Amino acid sequence: MMPEPLRPGDTIGIVGGGQLGRMLAAAAGRLGYRTIVLDPDPACPAALFAAEVIVGPYDGREGLGELARRSGVVTYEFENVPVEPMRLLARACPVYPPAEALEVAQDRVVEKAFLNGIGIATAPWRAVDDAAELNFAHLDLGTDTILKTRRLGYDGKGQTRLGADDSPEGAFEALGGVPAILEGRIAFSAEISVIAARSRAGEVAAFDPAENRHEGGILRRSSVPAAVSGQTRAEAVRMATRILDRLGYVGVIGVEFFVRADGALLVNEIAPRVHNSGHWTEAACCVSQFEQHVRAVAGLPLGDPRRHSDCVMENLIGEDVARVPELLAQSDTMLTLYGKSEARAGRKMGHWTRLAPRSQA
Amino acid sequence: MMPEPLRPGDTIGIVGGGQLGRMLAAAAGRLGYRTIVLDPDPACPAALFAAEVIVGPYDGREGLGELARRSGVVTYEFENVPVEPMRLLARACPVYPPAEALEVAQDRVVEKAFLNGIGIATAPWRAVDDAAELNFAHLDLGTDTILKTRRLGYDGKGQTRLGADDSPEGAFEALGGVPAILEGRIAFSAEISVIAARSRAGEVAAFDPAENRHEGGILRRSSVPAAVSGQTRAEAVRMATRILDRLGYVGVIGVEFFVRADGALLVNEIAPRVHNSGHWTEAACCVSQFEQHVRAVAGLPLGDPRRHSDCVMENLIGEDVARVPELLAQSDTMLTLYGKSEARAGRKMGHWTRLAPRSQA
Repeated sequence: MMPEPLRPGDTIGIVGGGQLGRMLAAAAGRLGYRTIVLDPDPACPAALFAAEVIVGPYDGREGLGELARRSGVVTYEFENVPVEPMRLLARACPVYPPAEALEVAQDRVVEKAFLNGIGIATAPWRAVDDAAELNFAHLDLGTDTILKTRRLGYDGKGQTRLGADDSPEGAFEALGGVPAILEGRIAFSAEISVIAARSRAGEVAAFDPAENRHEGGILRRSSVPAAVSGQTRAEAVRMATRILDRLGYVGVIGVEFFVRADGALLVNEIAPRVHNSGHWTEAACCVSQFEQHVRAVAGLPLGDPRRHSDCVMENLIGEDVARVPELLAQSDTMLTLYGKSEARAGRKMGHWTRLAPRSQA
Repeated sequence: MMPEPLRPGDTIGIVGGGQLGRMLAAAAGRLGYRTIVLDPDPACPAALFAAEVIVGPYDGREGLGELARRSGVVTYEFENVPVEPMRLLARACPVYPPAEALEVAQDRVVEKAFLNGIGIATAPWRAVDDAAELNFAHLDLGTDTILKTRRLGYDGKGQTRLGADDSPEGAFEALGGVPAILEGRIAFSAEISVIAARSRAGEVAAFDPAENRHEGGILRRSSVPAAVSGQTRAEAVRMATRILDRLGYVGVIGVEFFVRADGALLVNEIAPRVHNSGHWTEAACCVSQFEQHVRAVAGLPLGDPRRHSDCVMENLIGEDVARVPELLAQSDTMLTLYGKSEARAGRKMGHWTRLAPRSQA
C-alpha cells in the first residue's frame, strides 16, 4: 500500500549532512517541510537549513531509529549508507529510494550485472576477488584497463589504471586486496549524465542530459545542452527511465554515460541520489533536482523538468574558493557555497552557474 | 569609512523572522553566511533557515544589542523597527538600510514630504492631527479621499475611505484619533513597483518593474513585464534610483507607483526592505531580490538584475493554502510556503510563480 503524501509541516529525514543534504533541506523547507539530518558532525553543511541534526554515524542503529521515528519519510544524500539498517528502517517509515537501488549502486559488479541484464551496455568488465583472477581478467580484457574496488569508491578514489607493463599483483595489493572489478577502458567522445526522477505513482521526469568534464576523477564542469545529437540525448533519457522503472525507484537518480564516437551509449555508473551534475537545474529549471527529489519522496506529483535557459555549472574544489571574490564580481554568475570552513584538496566547497538564452538544441 | 565586506562564514543579523526574513536567511546561507534572527516567536518562519533565533521584542535593547554584538552587519525585514535603537546599534555594527530610510518610510507625512522634495509626484495630501484639521483637509482635497494613520499601516490596515457623505470626525475616531494623513484618491490605470538595490559603493541595480494587483489592500498578484510603455518603465527606474541615491541607501528597496492614463507616475509608498512584489525575481532572475539585498548589506558587488523569463507571482493568503495540492499538481508552477501553521484570514502563507518565455517588452 502506498503511504500517504506528506503534508506541509511534516518532517523529512535525511541520512548525511553534506552539501547535497544541505540543498535538499533548503528545497524541502521551501515546500513547507522540516528536515532532520543524521550526520556525525553537528556542524555539517546541512545543519544550517535542517530543523535539527541527530549526531551519530550513518550506520548507527540508534540514530537511524530515531530518524525514522521522527520522520514522515527517510531519504539519503549518498549511496554508501548500509543496506540492512535501511531495510529495517523501511518497516517503521517509508525509505526512498528503495534499498534495491542502494544494493545495485554500492557494488560495481552488481551494478554492471544489473545494467547488462536489462539490456544496457557498459564497458567490458570482470569481477576479480584475488590476484590470480585479476591476472586472467587482464589477459581477457586487453592491456588498457582500470581496476576499481567493488565498493566505496567516489570522486576517483579506490581505482587505478592497469596498463600492459603494470603488475596485476601490485595493482591488486595497492587497492588493499579487497574484492574488485576490472573494466576495459573505452574510447569515448563525450561524457553525459541524465538526472531523472520517478514519483511514488511511477511517473518519470528527466532533465535534459548535461555534458560533463572531469579532472582527476572529480566533476569539474557540467553544461546543457550536451553537444551530442538529439537522438543520443533521447536514448540516454530512455535508458535512465528503464533503470528507474526496473528498480521500482522513487526519487532522483543520476546516470552517467560515455558517448562513443558513433553516438552509442555506455552507462558508466548510477548514483541513487541527487547528483553534482544536476546542480545546474536550480538555475535553469522551474523545479530543481533537489525539489524534484523532495516531491518524489514526499509523495507529491513531479515538477516540470524543462529548462528555460542554457546553463554552465562549475565546481569550486579545494583552493578554488580563493576565486569567490572574483566570481561575486561577475554579475551574471550565480554562486552557491556549502558553508565548509576548511578547503582541503579535492573537497567540493561550492559551485557557480551561468545562464544563456536557450538554444534550439 | 566603509566597513569591510563580510567574509564567508560571517553572520548577518536580521530584525524580524517572518517570510521575508526566512527568504533572506536562505539567500544568505547560499552565499555561505550565517544568519541570526531577532523575533518574539522562537518558531517564526525564518527560524528554519537561520542559524539561530534571539527571542525578544523587535525594540528590546537587550535583544538588539546581542544581535549587533554577534553580527557582522544588521538588517531588517520590515519597516516598523524603532529608529532610535537602530541608530544606537549602528555605532556598534553596520546597520543597512540606513536609519534615514526607516524614518522616511515609517511616517507617511515624512515620506510624502521627502518624495515631493526631491521632485517626485505623489497623490495630493495633508497632514491631519485632529478632527478639525481633517475637516479643513477634506474641504481642500475634495470629496474622494482616504484617511491613513501616519504610522504602522500595512496590507491596507490603518486606513479608511472618506467620501462626500462621511463624517470626518467619525473617520478620525475610527482610526483611533492618532496623527494621520489625508490623501486625495487619484485615478490610475495601473499599479507598478520597482525593486532596486544600492550597494555600499553606490552602484544601483533595478529589476524590471512589476505590475501589481491588490485585493482588499493586500497584494494578490505581480507580473513582469508590466503592461505599460517602455518610457514609463524607464522613468519608474529613474525615480527609484533617485530615491536610493538621496537616502544614501544600502540594500533593496521597494517603490510602489500609480500609473495614470497618460503614463505619468506617482509614488504610492516606499518600503525599505525586500518586497512582496519582488518575489518573482527568485524564479526569473539569476540573482533574486533576497540575494541582492544580502550582497548589498554584506558589501559585495550587486548581481545582474536582468530577467531571463516573463513571470507571474501570486500570493497564497489565508485559506488559499487549501489550493496547495492543486498547485503542486501543476508541473510548471513553482511553489514557496512560509512554514506558518495557522492560516488566519489575510495572512500571507506562501506564493507561487509561473514562468513564460521572455517577451520583447
